[in-house]
Amino acid sequence: MKILDIVSSDVRFPTSLENLGTDAVHVDCDYSATYVEIITNNKELRGIGLTFTIGKGNDLCVRCIDNFKYLFVGRSILDIEVNMNSLWRQCTNHSQLRWIGPEKGLVHLAVAALFNGIWDLISKYYKKPLWKYIIELDTDDLLDKLSFTYIDDAISREQSHQIIESKKKKLREVTPSFIENGFPCYTTAAGWLGYSDKKLASLTEKYLLEGWTHFKLKVGQDIERDIRRCRIVREIIGKENFLMVDANQVWSVKESITNINKLKKFDLFFVEEPTSPDDILG
Amino acid sequence: MKILDIVSSDVRFPTSLENLGTDAVHVDCDYSATYVEIITNNKELRGIGLTFTIGKGNDLCVRCIDNFKYLFVGRSILDIEVNMNSLWRQCTNHSQLRWIGPEKGLVHLAVAALFNGIWDLISKYYKKPLWKYIIELDTDDLLDKLSFTYIDDAISREQSHQIIESKKKKLREVTPSFIENGFPCYTTAAGWLGYSDKKLASLTEKYLLEGWTHFKLKVGQDIERDIRRCRIVREIIGKENFLMVDANQVWSVKESITNINKLKKFDLFFVEEPTSPDDILG
Repeated sequence: MKILDIVSSDVRFPTSLENLGTDAVHVDCDYSATYVEIITNNKELRGIGLTFTIGKGNDLCVRCIDNFKYLFVGRSILDIEVNMNSLWRQCTNHSQLRWIGPEKGLVHLAVAALFNGIWDLISKYYKKPLWKYIIELDTDDLLDKLSFTYIDDAISREQSHQIIESKKKKLREVTPSFIENGFPCYTTAAGWLGYSDKKLASLTEKYLLEGWTHFKLKVGQDIERDIRRCRIVREIIGKENFLMVDANQVWSVKESITNINKLKKFDLFFVEEPTSPDDILG
Repeated sequence: MKILDIVSSDVRFPTSLENLGTDAVHVDCDYSATYVEIITNNKELRGIGLTFTIGKGNDLCVRCIDNFKYLFVGRSILDIEVNMNSLWRQCTNHSQLRWIGPEKGLVHLAVAALFNGIWDLISKYYKKPLWKYIIELDTDDLLDKLSFTYIDDAISREQSHQIIESKKKKLREVTPSFIENGFPCYTTAAGWLGYSDKKLASLTEKYLLEGWTHFKLKVGQDIERDIRRCRIVREIIGKENFLMVDANQVWSVKESITNINKLKKFDLFFVEEPTSPDDILG
């Protein structure tokens, strides 16, 4: 079973027309995908991966992937499976492309789409969902697929081995409940920043009725409006459900402190990305 | 005086053929440039900017710049001059392109090439070198051109104003000496990692004769070889000159400590990028 080709496509949706996905800094997103198909010599077996972008630049991401084709085309799935770590490093740390990355921004997004496709291909090859493939891997085989570059002073391969082995002991116990009940998640679908108060309220009511218990609101353009929107949602969902906000890094450290204090009374479960890591380093 | 067009070119040189520019992680660099020309309605006035890349991906950088053209074309130089900060923010924090950046990697390199061209255009418009344009700006006008986003908890505009004003007091005193003697710098031209010991020694001798006093060596692939190369250079340049090394982030924290201790006896002036900031954060 060999990889014959890697085909990437620039797929875009005009979500900005209805302010879908909008937040304090992404004010006109067109939800898009760099969509990757890994073609093999078995017509039934095709790996699919994607990376999410919000419009412009998606073409660059698509084009970036072509640089990595030579590492995969012509190789067997089993060969790639045992060399995942080395291939990941060859892509994210490519001796020329690393200059325009490395391990961040466009290059990382392109590599992510590609590797999502590779992981998909491997799990399809073994005829299991990816999560099942991963948890059924021998711990050493799993660790062989991961890179510890730049983190081995914080966590070593040996420590990771211990953590994974200890978690695996609970797997047989918890897996059936996950399969039956699914994994808990939250919704942001009511809380995009470009939505009117009316739309925010009606969508929150709708999702509450559907059984959602955790609601995330985008904030950060106008704190008075943020307060009003938090009040609207908290009144609808009551005290027993969870409210979170996400400022998408728009605030400085000082603004974060001031604004979060103003939102405190709404009992926030968490505040996502109040400011940028650059600021915290600064 | 208006901007009519922005033309970007993908310029590459096959420097990898002679191992020029090589270090521990960039083993086959083709020194390249995303070369930007800002065309105005005055044929004599053209801003030139560039960003440095090492080969692959330079095409993506060139193409990225096209996304920002609409912010500049048709506008006057004076209009752009007073809006530098806002234009910089609109580019580095572009509501869609920020997803594949922001303020890092490819997008930042593309914006850098573009703004180098804009700064060049402004200084040519005023018929002075850029450094002279900058130091002759009123401090408030200069600060208007800079962004304090994410750093205002570390340094405020007011603090920056004080620092610049205090430095300006010395300007009249130090400028003539800079004009006459130039600004001190060092050379890495003898120390590329792909060079043989023989070439390293003969180039070090050559640059020493030319008057260089500070020499930087690339290190990081093989510590025994690094030790040998440091010894060669230190013996040639003597105790009175300066030796620095650059590992281009190839080491982990632990390896950095071990290896720098092994190189200590060569009295290094500095060690550049022993590891990655990701590691220090880790």
